[in-house]
Amino acid sequence: MKEEKIPYKIYLTEEEMPKQWYNVRADMKNKPAPLLNPATKQPMTLEELSGVFCTELAKQELDDTNAYIDIPEEIRKFYKMYRPAPLVRAYCLEEKLQTPAKIYYKFEGNNTSGSHKLNSAIAQAYYAKEQGLKGVTTETGAGQWGTALSMACSYLGLDCKVFMVKVSYEQKPFRREVMRTYGASVTPSPSTTTEVGRKILEEHPGTSGSLGCAISEAVEVAVNTEGYRYVLGSVLSQVLLHQSIIGLEAKAALDKYNITPDIIIGCAGGGSNLGGLISPFMGEKLRGEKDYHFIAVEPASCPSLTRGKYAYDFCDTGKVCPLAKMYTLGSGFIPSANHAGGLRYHGMSSVLSQLYDDGLMEARSVEQTKVFEAAEAFARVEGILPAPESSHAIRVAIDEAMKCKETGEEKTIVFGLTGTGYFDMKAYEKFHNGEMTDYVPTDEDLKPGFDSLPVI
Amino acid sequence: MKEEKIPYKIYLTEEEMPKQWYNVRADMKNKPAPLLNPATKQPMTLEELSGVFCTELAKQELDDTNAYIDIPEEIRKFYKMYRPAPLVRAYCLEEKLQTPAKIYYKFEGNNTSGSHKLNSAIAQAYYAKEQGLKGVTTETGAGQWGTALSMACSYLGLDCKVFMVKVSYEQKPFRREVMRTYGASVTPSPSTTTEVGRKILEEHPGTSGSLGCAISEAVEVAVNTEGYRYVLGSVLSQVLLHQSIIGLEAKAALDKYNITPDIIIGCAGGGSNLGGLISPFMGEKLRGEKDYHFIAVEPASCPSLTRGKYAYDFCDTGKVCPLAKMYTLGSGFIPSANHAGGLRYHGMSSVLSQLYDDGLMEARSVEQTKVFEAAEAFARVEGILPAPESSHAIRVAIDEAMKCKETGEEKTIVFGLTGTGYFDMKAYEKFHNGEMTDYVPTDEDLKPGFDSLPVI
Repeated sequence: MKEEKIPYKIYLTEEEMPKQWYNVRADMKNKPAPLLNPATKQPMTLEELSGVFCTELAKQELDDTNAYIDIPEEIRKFYKMYRPAPLVRAYCLEEKLQTPAKIYYKFEGNNTSGSHKLNSAIAQAYYAKEQGLKGVTTETGAGQWGTALSMACSYLGLDCKVFMVKVSYEQKPFRREVMRTYGASVTPSPSTTTEVGRKILEEHPGTSGSLGCAISEAVEVAVNTEGYRYVLGSVLSQVLLHQSIIGLEAKAALDKYNITPDIIIGCAGGGSNLGGLISPFMGEKLRGEKDYHFIAVEPASCPSLTRGKYAYDFCDTGKVCPLAKMYTLGSGFIPSANHAGGLRYHGMSSVLSQLYDDGLMEARSVEQTKVFEAAEAFARVEGILPAPESSHAIRVAIDEAMKCKETGEEKTIVFGLTGTGYFDMKAYEKFHNGEMTDYVPTDEDLKPGFDSLPVI
Repeated sequence: MKEEKIPYKIYLTEEEMPKQWYNVRADMKNKPAPLLNPATKQPMTLEELSGVFCTELAKQELDDTNAYIDIPEEIRKFYKMYRPAPLVRAYCLEEKLQTPAKIYYKFEGNNTSGSHKLNSAIAQAYYAKEQGLKGVTTETGAGQWGTALSMACSYLGLDCKVFMVKVSYEQKPFRREVMRTYGASVTPSPSTTTEVGRKILEEHPGTSGSLGCAISEAVEVAVNTEGYRYVLGSVLSQVLLHQSIIGLEAKAALDKYNITPDIIIGCAGGGSNLGGLISPFMGEKLRGEKDYHFIAVEPASCPSLTRGKYAYDFCDTGKVCPLAKMYTLGSGFIPSANHAGGLRYHGMSSVLSQLYDDGLMEARSVEQTKVFEAAEAFARVEGILPAPESSHAIRVAIDEAMKCKETGEEKTIVFGLTGTGYFDMKAYEKFHNGEMTDYVPTDEDLKPGFDSLPVI
């Protein structure tokens, strides 16, 4: 065991917690491309965005110049309930791997939503409340985002309507009950409560639903109900802004001990965690102050960065949301049944897409059996049972640590451990029983997605 | 909102973490009665106990004179993986209740086992490893203890055989998979792998098992397999010793801010959490240094302290373990299907039973609908989704805080939040659907249990 001058867990004090979010767009020379109105193909105006999102969030979505944005006092109070999140030195993993690398992870799973999603949920709920709204609507697949939003709304006394993909609603009753505990109404989607839901049920009786359909129902209710707005848990630039709390805390913890990471790794679905983790470090890189090696890790079954196209695309399968320029597999691409539900998204945050296109970070795709091997090895020595999504980052962190073992380099590796896998034991069961399959789409499999890209 | 000089969460630094456990028996004038050999009715000797438990643990079981016992370095390292556990100031709950009381809770749920059980699991596994054993056996009902032991064994490279009550094995497949992730073998009990299991299956074909049967199977395997011992997650005095880490940390955190609690509350099943939480405070009371009001909270459906007898009894339904003097409903008492599985035990730790009998603490029983009301109210403002067991303590903490509201007293209340309820959503679902029932046994219902008490 190496000398332990650095504690196992670095906690900031509450006074040391960030008081502002960091907006990486302010330091980008090449700004992310603007959202386009799907009807006019023109950049979305504040007014247009304010019909769907509450006004302050619409402003944040458009703001690519202000580097720091104050975190309102009420949100900081809420953050204190479950933050600061620890930056953990993975001494036990290092010893197990017998690597000279120093491995750290920023653990975001110590809250009931089980992930980092709560960081943006409370911000979005807060601004909705400030605007005098009655409630918000959203969709949820696996349920983490829906849980986070329910918790935030319950704290603020805001109504929360969640449309949950029907197959998840039925297969994940526990997630549903967690949301109900926080007072949210949870409707299986497609439902008969919306026009679009009824239409889909008529066309496809017995369908088990999809994220695209749930989004369409949530947006319909938000737009047609007085005092409601729609909120989203990833992809948007406002979400990356709120999630910068992850990176800011991680950086403050590292700075306390004069540690400079060499490699920073995060899993990437829509980009909310990766973007939040790397933002302040990327800022330093963009300003030419320091250099870091960033690695985005995505599932081989849904490889938007590594095999997608950089193009304008629909954010949802229902095609009701604005168009975003991003690395995408096309909204018509249907990812296979990968167990990391949070990474099964056809596109990638516009901010991260631009940074990747500018060569400022690397992307890798990994297959899920290898991911679960890493997850189990990690759990057995570090104790925490990781979410399948987070385990993508663990896989690459272990790979990099093993490279250090070969070369003898003492690199410092930081990765984002976004959450826990307590509601993913079905996936672990398949892994234990040797029933897990890996799927890598062929070029032919990717074609329908690319064919679905809109012509701009 | 009150002035917030005290942070939301008080964390000790790793240097401030306790280096010794505290053995409250050393300060008790009336020592807990000794365990008796069920065959001879004589006090169990070290030699006899060492056949079942590993030697160092047998010594701890018998030690009622040494007040402080060093925590081995290896265990302290493991503790650093998930400890120190935060002492949380429940500002949001106080505001919700509009009470002048100051409420704190010691949260033990931030680890994969989801509860405080890990504190003793690692200690028991460590001493087994030190003795050169190959593995340990145990039983588990709801699965928290089995999970904790699996984690500890996986960390130390020790084999772990868990007998899981068949009905839980089938109804809680997620818990089972968590244990498998940590490399434990999990056998539904009764099984055909033991003599006692085969016998029970023959007599009761199709039985869904019981804790008593699972204990018998685990003990049989431990006693008959070279290099194995049996371990237990509660009731025993050694377990209370290990769990004193809860109270020692809580006290150190309070001392940091010169806070002296008036009331200390814990849920009580076998007594591992309550005993651990109150030990160092009780020590002060026993030594006449300070006074505290301790409240043990148990389910009305299984009221061992409030309605039990103080007598020698079997610790297990299979009657293979030593006899303990304790407040008990009799090993023949079958608790109703209360949702707090961890509190469905017929007896209470000998240490706590003696302290209670000496009038040093109060006990209250509460009905489960009231418990879940408290659980949900707590979750909505404090974020954490509590385990049904822990929610018994929340219920009484809220009751006491409301009394303060009436009287205007600014009492300081500390309670133990032993764990999270992520695997208990079936119970929450019943609560949400209004299907939860309360059960209070009549004196007639208690009779068969009392009739089963052995004559000593």
